[in-house]
Amino acid sequence: MYRAPVAEIAFTLKHVIGLSPAITAGHLGELSVDLLDAILEEAGRFASEEIAPLNQIGDRRASTYKDGEVTLPEGWAKTYSAWCEAGWNALSGPEEFGGQDLPVSLAVAAFDIWNSACAAFALGPTLTVGAVEALKLHATEEIKERYLARLVSGEWTGTMNLTEPQAGSDLGALRCRAERRDDGTYRLFGQKIFITYGEHDMADNIVHTVLARLPDAPAGTKGISLFLVPKYLVNEDGSLGAHNDVFCAGIEHKLGINASPTCTMLYGDGHYGDGPGAVGYLIGEENRGLACMFTMMNNARLMVGIQGVGVAERALQEAAAYALERRQGRAPNAPKDGEMSPIVKHPDIRRTLLAMRGLTQASRAICYACAHAIDLAEAGAPGPETNGDGTRFWNERASLLTPIAKAFSTDCGVDVASMGIQVYGGMGYIEETGAAQHLRDARIFPIYEGTNGIQAIDLLTRKLPQSDGACVRAYLEELSAIAEAARASNRDEMGKIGERVAASIAHCRAASEYLLEEMAEGRMEGALCGATPYLRLFGLTAGGAYLAQGAISSDPTESEADRLRIATARSFCERLCPQTEALLAEIKEGGQSVLQVPAETLASFQ
Amino acid sequence: MYRAPVAEIAFTLKHVIGLSPAITAGHLGELSVDLLDAILEEAGRFASEEIAPLNQIGDRRASTYKDGEVTLPEGWAKTYSAWCEAGWNALSGPEEFGGQDLPVSLAVAAFDIWNSACAAFALGPTLTVGAVEALKLHATEEIKERYLARLVSGEWTGTMNLTEPQAGSDLGALRCRAERRDDGTYRLFGQKIFITYGEHDMADNIVHTVLARLPDAPAGTKGISLFLVPKYLVNEDGSLGAHNDVFCAGIEHKLGINASPTCTMLYGDGHYGDGPGAVGYLIGEENRGLACMFTMMNNARLMVGIQGVGVAERALQEAAAYALERRQGRAPNAPKDGEMSPIVKHPDIRRTLLAMRGLTQASRAICYACAHAIDLAEAGAPGPETNGDGTRFWNERASLLTPIAKAFSTDCGVDVASMGIQVYGGMGYIEETGAAQHLRDARIFPIYEGTNGIQAIDLLTRKLPQSDGACVRAYLEELSAIAEAARASNRDEMGKIGERVAASIAHCRAASEYLLEEMAEGRMEGALCGATPYLRLFGLTAGGAYLAQGAISSDPTESEADRLRIATARSFCERLCPQTEALLAEIKEGGQSVLQVPAETLASFQ
Repeated sequence: MYRAPVAEIAFTLKHVIGLSPAITAGHLGELSVDLLDAILEEAGRFASEEIAPLNQIGDRRASTYKDGEVTLPEGWAKTYSAWCEAGWNALSGPEEFGGQDLPVSLAVAAFDIWNSACAAFALGPTLTVGAVEALKLHATEEIKERYLARLVSGEWTGTMNLTEPQAGSDLGALRCRAERRDDGTYRLFGQKIFITYGEHDMADNIVHTVLARLPDAPAGTKGISLFLVPKYLVNEDGSLGAHNDVFCAGIEHKLGINASPTCTMLYGDGHYGDGPGAVGYLIGEENRGLACMFTMMNNARLMVGIQGVGVAERALQEAAAYALERRQGRAPNAPKDGEMSPIVKHPDIRRTLLAMRGLTQASRAICYACAHAIDLAEAGAPGPETNGDGTRFWNERASLLTPIAKAFSTDCGVDVASMGIQVYGGMGYIEETGAAQHLRDARIFPIYEGTNGIQAIDLLTRKLPQSDGACVRAYLEELSAIAEAARASNRDEMGKIGERVAASIAHCRAASEYLLEEMAEGRMEGALCGATPYLRLFGLTAGGAYLAQGAISSDPTESEADRLRIATARSFCERLCPQTEALLAEIKEGGQSVLQVPAETLASFQ
Repeated sequence: MYRAPVAEIAFTLKHVIGLSPAITAGHLGELSVDLLDAILEEAGRFASEEIAPLNQIGDRRASTYKDGEVTLPEGWAKTYSAWCEAGWNALSGPEEFGGQDLPVSLAVAAFDIWNSACAAFALGPTLTVGAVEALKLHATEEIKERYLARLVSGEWTGTMNLTEPQAGSDLGALRCRAERRDDGTYRLFGQKIFITYGEHDMADNIVHTVLARLPDAPAGTKGISLFLVPKYLVNEDGSLGAHNDVFCAGIEHKLGINASPTCTMLYGDGHYGDGPGAVGYLIGEENRGLACMFTMMNNARLMVGIQGVGVAERALQEAAAYALERRQGRAPNAPKDGEMSPIVKHPDIRRTLLAMRGLTQASRAICYACAHAIDLAEAGAPGPETNGDGTRFWNERASLLTPIAKAFSTDCGVDVASMGIQVYGGMGYIEETGAAQHLRDARIFPIYEGTNGIQAIDLLTRKLPQSDGACVRAYLEELSAIAEAARASNRDEMGKIGERVAASIAHCRAASEYLLEEMAEGRMEGALCGATPYLRLFGLTAGGAYLAQGAISSDPTESEADRLRIATARSFCERLCPQTEALLAEIKEGGQSVLQVPAETLASFQ
């Protein structure tokens, strides 16, 4: 059961993140408010009617592997075709290759919906969109001509091949090698693991993007190149040729997202092709592959964040529906001799559902804000204090928000899914109910595309220092205006929203300055001990501010949705935001204890 | 891979919880420090050598059901027999029925170890111990004679039959009925669900304790009686008679603890027996069954708390071992051109492992402290301010700590298992690794034996008001002495342990007084919105204090274990304890937002 919260998503885009003014200012191309509403409405319909029923089936039947081939669960390929035919894969793709070139923020909102319907399904197109982005920016015209249109339409799917057994978080360690051929092509050899949708039966061709090392490449991350390696070679006329020397050696048995095949891929092991090696085409320049891949990774990180949001939304909806129906005990004000109350009436359940909603909605807003910054950068929209080109400003904003969108939202995804189980009680532990699947599915999101620990380190060491901290400062300044407006609204039902957000902003500012100083002084180890709490602090602050913005834009005399939005914001700001002070203390004081025993001691048990 | 942390467990018992002085004072019967060490050592050996290998097998093969019979995974029955033969089931059983009558605290410590080795295995005996306790206190001599010895030895196992489809948290709604027979026995009719080890093949008989309602019983919880219903009737000479009319209609497909069969039980449906009805024997008085069952439930709640600790310990050990072995990237102070560092050297991983250890160790201490209070109550030991009988004091202390031991420890179990997955990165999501199983297994603990929400309500509405709040006040006073001692220790490596614990105690005190006042004034709904954060606040405070006590009792010049214990305490107190202030704010200010929209609104999605 899933009903896309179309009105809430549209509200968040328009009134929380700022799509309405951006549309008015002409930064978002052809997009109008009406078109936005219509697209979301239709996405919601397709998602709940066509995709949502796949979710539990996919979990139970899972993808299966036999002799190098992967079969997706029943109904998968058919629904994927229908989805592509309806044009959904092409939403944000470049127009010259058949895409609709709509803003990233709208595409992310659509993926919010696809992921709620079925995260394992949405994962395939997520990778394809990443491949489209990388080719669009870095590939030669010839490759674009040959591959892009069919990736944009979804006729072919894309993958990202980074991980090898010895090279996960540390891509510098990868060994997959590429050899030059006289005709300008390359041949690839090596093994890749954890390749999402590396092999499957729902598209005619699979376009792998693969990181590998040339024989004369420098060691480490500066010697990595990016290659396009199609499953089937593509002839000049666009028809499919021979099977390239790419072989799926198996799929993993995972905790969740069972329908999404996680493949071990062998390149150039001689299973197919005219050997030796899998035919590959360079994307971008030699040894600059990591930069190209990061185009994909940044996009993918945001898209993983929205996976967290999508699954959280689904878990919330199902838990709320169950709480409305399930009766146990008597709520505080219910008649003692009457029938049992729906558990939604018990304060602790109300608290839980509101917390789930707040986390989901805050994560959603952060992801959308990140996407919107990408759009504004692309549009060269002016920054808040500039009249001219704000590309750099918005690029930095997007860079700043990416690790937060990824890590905060996926932590929320896991937490909300777990709370959902708790609302179900014993029934939540039974697989039939479906609540447990959400936790199992969501648990990968904090791990892949850079663990959340890596995101926190990225935020601390790369994003916080952008423009010497000016990027973070400007962002917090912007959030302060929201806090001030909330405080000024002076409406009873807003409670202390403004005060709490303002306090969190102050904590975030203090943490930022403290960490900048620590890093400047070379006290890196101590600063790194604060990376994860800093990201959390940042997420709570930004999330609280966006919820506050939503509350400000709501009218409690207007509708139930408005009143609920205000209560959600208030609950988040009054109940969760106070944690930011503790996180600041953890950042400032917590390093010493972590570092005071040798690392190896942490693995001793007596 | 599991190595029982025997030294740490013994240290916690002796020096944190106070077993050493209690032994000296003669409150713990025959137990000596040497005996305690010897028992733990031997339990650790048995657990890691015999039981631990079952854990992954049990998860993969699971229990299976066919025609009313349940088959446990291979090796299960044999290991269970060996375990019983070694006397482990009888550890805390009454001496006159073959038990060793050892303190509950020691039994809980042993279950800490059994649960680390295999939670699905330890679950069976956990239920048996509960049944022993209920029979010991409430059954007639005749029933004791016929059943107790074989439950104590483990030759037969016990169950708790509470839940029915419409009666989970609210037992007042149960419908299972019992009819009186002229010979003083009863016949039972009805369906029970979620019955752990309700049917299996590792013991000759299964002794069900079943809640049911007599025809003339009052409605609600005051009309519930407790019955003993054996799977096989027991003849006067102790031999087994006919199969009673008890039938297992199926087992659940669950998120985890797959080897532990979760059964639907039918009583009196005519599958077996001389019908109509399953033969049952009254335990305690008619209509007083819930009180008897609560004997079992309180015990069971503590035992579930220790399940959280056990799984957390296992997850921690495995994550730490992986972090020592897995190499990725270069740690801050490692040579840039050297080989990759073990990830244990990265500050964010160190932080994670230390947090896991702190949560595990804090939960452990709280569970042990609860068990120790039970022991002191039974011994009639004096309370801290009385010279005479402290039974009431210690009973109240045990009652107070039970919901905290259950809920805080099981939340920690889930969190630590999830952190363990994170340390493994992508490998953590692959089932083969085993890290994911810990999360799946641990996720039931916050649910069964009263959800953690129910525990929080119990703490707030029943335990906090004990002796008009004097019980809580005395406890916090006791913890204050620890904080003061930590502060007075004035040792560099202790950091701000004392200050942080003292601050948390102050927050806990303020929250307690605030909530007592709110309840006294009849503002129940608002108080209930603070139940869960209050329990968390209490757990962090108590956990921090016990870790502080451990640090005080440690000598940093002595051993690696001592230094690690101090760092763990410091990390917990400086990094986690500051959250108590936010929790206090949540309790005091958070109710209004939760209650400001109608409950039903929380289930609306637009």
